[in-house]
Amino acid sequence: MSAFASPAAFAAALIRLRAPDAAARAAAAARQDTLTKPPGSLGRLEEVAIFMAGWQGRDTPRLEQARVAVFAGNHGVAARGVSAFPSAVTAQMVTNYRRGGAAINALAEAAGLELAVVPIDLDRPTHDFTTGPAMDEADCLAALNAGAAVVVPGLDLLALGEMGIGNSTAAAALCAASLGGTAADWVGPGTGVRGAALSTKAGVIDTALALHWPAATAPFEILRRLGGREIVAIAGAVVAARQAGVPVLLDGFICGAAIAPIAAFHPAIVDHCLAAHCSAEPGHARLLDRLGLQPLLSLDMRLGEGSGAAVAAGLVRASLTAHARMSTFTDAGVSSR
Amino acid sequence: MSAFASPAAFAAALIRLRAPDAAARAAAAARQDTLTKPPGSLGRLEEVAIFMAGWQGRDTPRLEQARVAVFAGNHGVAARGVSAFPSAVTAQMVTNYRRGGAAINALAEAAGLELAVVPIDLDRPTHDFTTGPAMDEADCLAALNAGAAVVVPGLDLLALGEMGIGNSTAAAALCAASLGGTAADWVGPGTGVRGAALSTKAGVIDTALALHWPAATAPFEILRRLGGREIVAIAGAVVAARQAGVPVLLDGFICGAAIAPIAAFHPAIVDHCLAAHCSAEPGHARLLDRLGLQPLLSLDMRLGEGSGAAVAAGLVRASLTAHARMSTFTDAGVSSR
Repeated sequence: MSAFASPAAFAAALIRLRAPDAAARAAAAARQDTLTKPPGSLGRLEEVAIFMAGWQGRDTPRLEQARVAVFAGNHGVAARGVSAFPSAVTAQMVTNYRRGGAAINALAEAAGLELAVVPIDLDRPTHDFTTGPAMDEADCLAALNAGAAVVVPGLDLLALGEMGIGNSTAAAALCAASLGGTAADWVGPGTGVRGAALSTKAGVIDTALALHWPAATAPFEILRRLGGREIVAIAGAVVAARQAGVPVLLDGFICGAAIAPIAAFHPAIVDHCLAAHCSAEPGHARLLDRLGLQPLLSLDMRLGEGSGAAVAAGLVRASLTAHARMSTFTDAGVSSR
Repeated sequence: MSAFASPAAFAAALIRLRAPDAAARAAAAARQDTLTKPPGSLGRLEEVAIFMAGWQGRDTPRLEQARVAVFAGNHGVAARGVSAFPSAVTAQMVTNYRRGGAAINALAEAAGLELAVVPIDLDRPTHDFTTGPAMDEADCLAALNAGAAVVVPGLDLLALGEMGIGNSTAAAALCAASLGGTAADWVGPGTGVRGAALSTKAGVIDTALALHWPAATAPFEILRRLGGREIVAIAGAVVAARQAGVPVLLDGFICGAAIAPIAAFHPAIVDHCLAAHCSAEPGHARLLDRLGLQPLLSLDMRLGEGSGAAVAAGLVRASLTAHARMSTFTDAGVSSR
């Protein structure tokens, strides 16, 4: 059975967003204050442990079954010359992920994450959204459900990433349509677009915004008109993870843009999400600020494919190891202040 | 045999600072540009891999034998009421490290680091440096050599940390004496000093600066007068690591302050050092800026004991795994731009 049977079912899921387990959060916070360190001195590592406790519903959260899902899709708008790489690279990189040769393979291994690679209809790019909606309703629903399908039972953490030549153009359009502003506020070099090509990219985004703006009045409709399959899948995965109580690690600008249409109407969608990092893409810092997310890392990364999320998963693991393993002042016989 | 037989031997070591292996650096940088990602898109992870290649002298740097050394010392100045915790906590925490109950035990395990705990004469606090030098020459040399001794053969990375009730007072004094300014520029809450106690702490630092300033004319002399044994040991470890070509991960404010007296005279001392993080201690951002170090992490940590360095070691591991494991565009059959 699909997670989202219709656009109305998706909209309904957004109205009843699950809350974290308050008792598990409180127990984790209380434990942090008994551990052998000045209270608060592990900074964001303490916050992460408490966050994970709340969403897992466990006083001592764990990271045994953690996965990074990398969705891939192709974009009709890529034909407008908005990327430094040809569209063929999307499928080539999927092959690279499957053979184990990409950054995400190495970084997922280093962080102890299982890698799920989910290409969606790469031979059928979305429609060029400067001339009409990127997807029809069935395509958009299928992508939402492809995303939801990565939320398998028993997951302790879901890290999300993407690959799709042209998708920073779609992401900028989604941000502007959801959060306001024009292309200039959200456009950036993506994989490496500069100069005249960057102006072309901005023009493409503004054209799309002018075409779709009056109709972009709900999350599903914004995603369908301006998104791409891998982006919509991320939105579906985030919502399905919320329903299942699975905490999420968002990678970069594209991942954040995927939930911007939801956040514009339901800001609490970010409550079960950690922003892994702030990327070098100029719109990302603004987007995180608008979403109310404080990134864990800021390493000038701009690769996508879940790479930043995988690195941040290492921080989550460090946080949970400290939370679970440290002695209390009483047990260790250490004087408190 | 001790690494530093005399203050003059230590001074001589600082004049001939080893350079990185330029060929290994260049080979690592060239490899990064062939890997299946837009050039530069792994940001600081690429820089770290190239840095490690240069100091290890290997095109493909590794992290097989990596250690975090935590030095501990007691401070006569602690009797002036500059800390939120009693001096007895230094030895209690050393016991905690040895039993495996502290944050550094969990974080070192998560990062795959061996932990070396090095208490130095805890039953013999340094002299209160508001009334005279903290150490005599023999004590200071012994601490330098205790630091150098953790640089065992074959180390791929040395992470450094410390424990010592009162040592953020010593660190602030070292920063001011080495880099200029008064207590107000460098003092902070440490483990949690606020209000009147913070003013007391600043007063103690300014008193010490007035007493020692005219004589603090060389790294050894600044360390001897205003340091502590664990701080001097860090300085010794950093210099010995440089001699051995071992890259170093510095933890927080205290670690940075330990090399400030060297950096004031020999700024290149930081070249084989990575700043693991910028801590919540207010002087740390200023110190990193003055040292010319850009921190890898900024997680509001303020624990010390190598905790931030251990978390950052996970980033180093991720960086090296990607560098070693990723396919090139040619090998993977991926189109370049």
